[in-house]
Amino acid sequence: MERPLILVTNDDGFDAPGIRFLADTVAKHGDVIVVAPGEAMSGMGHAITIKTPLRFHQIHPNGNYEIYRTNGTPVDSVKLAMHKILPRKPDILVSGVNHGSNASVNIIYSGTMAAVFEGAMAGIPSVGFSITDYDHAADLKITKPFIHEIVNFVLNQGLPNGISLNVNFPATDKGDYKGMKICRQALAYWKEEFEERYDPHNQPYFWMRGSFVNHDEELDTDEWALKNGYVSVVPVQFDFTAFRFM
Amino acid sequence: MERPLILVTNDDGFDAPGIRFLADTVAKHGDVIVVAPGEAMSGMGHAITIKTPLRFHQIHPNGNYEIYRTNGTPVDSVKLAMHKILPRKPDILVSGVNHGSNASVNIIYSGTMAAVFEGAMAGIPSVGFSITDYDHAADLKITKPFIHEIVNFVLNQGLPNGISLNVNFPATDKGDYKGMKICRQALAYWKEEFEERYDPHNQPYFWMRGSFVNHDEELDTDEWALKNGYVSVVPVQFDFTAFRFM
Repeated sequence: MERPLILVTNDDGFDAPGIRFLADTVAKHGDVIVVAPGEAMSGMGHAITIKTPLRFHQIHPNGNYEIYRTNGTPVDSVKLAMHKILPRKPDILVSGVNHGSNASVNIIYSGTMAAVFEGAMAGIPSVGFSITDYDHAADLKITKPFIHEIVNFVLNQGLPNGISLNVNFPATDKGDYKGMKICRQALAYWKEEFEERYDPHNQPYFWMRGSFVNHDEELDTDEWALKNGYVSVVPVQFDFTAFRFM
Repeated sequence: MERPLILVTNDDGFDAPGIRFLADTVAKHGDVIVVAPGEAMSGMGHAITIKTPLRFHQIHPNGNYEIYRTNGTPVDSVKLAMHKILPRKPDILVSGVNHGSNASVNIIYSGTMAAVFEGAMAGIPSVGFSITDYDHAADLKITKPFIHEIVNFVLNQGLPNGISLNVNFPATDKGDYKGMKICRQALAYWKEEFEERYDPHNQPYFWMRGSFVNHDEELDTDEWALKNGYVSVVPVQFDFTAFRFM
């Protein structure tokens, strides 16, 4: 039987520790090809590049799998992978492991999850992995059994058409995880602040900062699961229709 | 009674005909302030700017309302407007009129609709307007009565918390519109092609193109409504949870 073909991407860039860890981990399940942005693209949402041309380059191989970096966004990278790089449609797309949470409303800003939606739109079972820890030096090995279990499940069972998984891990300093929980997206938001500075020409400019505000403390939310030591798994789709209000 | 405060934004840039038309139209309903990207930001999705500082500048006033251009994305522009430009929380946010469809799956790539979701997340009733016509010279006056009706409705009745409207108009050459239809988002997708070229150094580069593919021909979809001469109105939300698959 042919080994599964696994497309690995992210939004932190092809050389982030998280994507190396994810590619190394899923290599057990099939043939891995990494196609990811050349530099960090956090906060790019579902951006695509239409005003400038796209390029991709193969990185000197490390022996285990091919790595390509692109000059595009995560979504561009998935499109390039499918149409110009991969030998065939992949059996699964995995994105991450993102250095930082994509739980709750973070998903809407997330390039990691945009790549996942892009995969799902192309009919590829797709899963995003993120850890609620911005430290690139965090030891991710605690996440490994969960990644194996989820990838194994998706390769064997598939996912319903249009449905993807948004998987978030609690920070590694939280000790052993208690297990996985199927959740809904918590209805939180970011409260922005703008730090005003002046440039050498005395013109104002602003750095955007934000703090996460969550009043949705229900037990079925991803935020609750993460806060309580569980790996959160949210089945997600890209249909924005608010059916209840039609 | 205080006049409503109306925030107008878009993703085609502050000087696109569509936003001028929208601002002029909604000025009948309240005090308008335009805050929009300095250049076209189509395809930016929900991108935010975190690696470079943000700036905004007031454009020489035209007498009717204030116009600010930002160096950010549509979402950045909404955040700057709310925290640094507007005197108070606006009563409504309107985005557009976008030159090009944001029906069906286009919504996920859309900066116009990202601005709308950003408004909704901040608790502002928000509506996106788009026309399925990329011609910037298209005469938009046929859309005017529908914009008045919707803005009037939203200012008087509000919208449920977290719910926004994605309004799309058929192209103007379709003659008189038959009316408005409340729809769901059609489950279509874009099929990409990459046009390969070679630069003067003989290195390949790729231009992304796409064609829209829709197999979802049900009568309750936005694509059906638009094809049949109706203005499509889809109530949308930013909760990606696929509740049916939990």
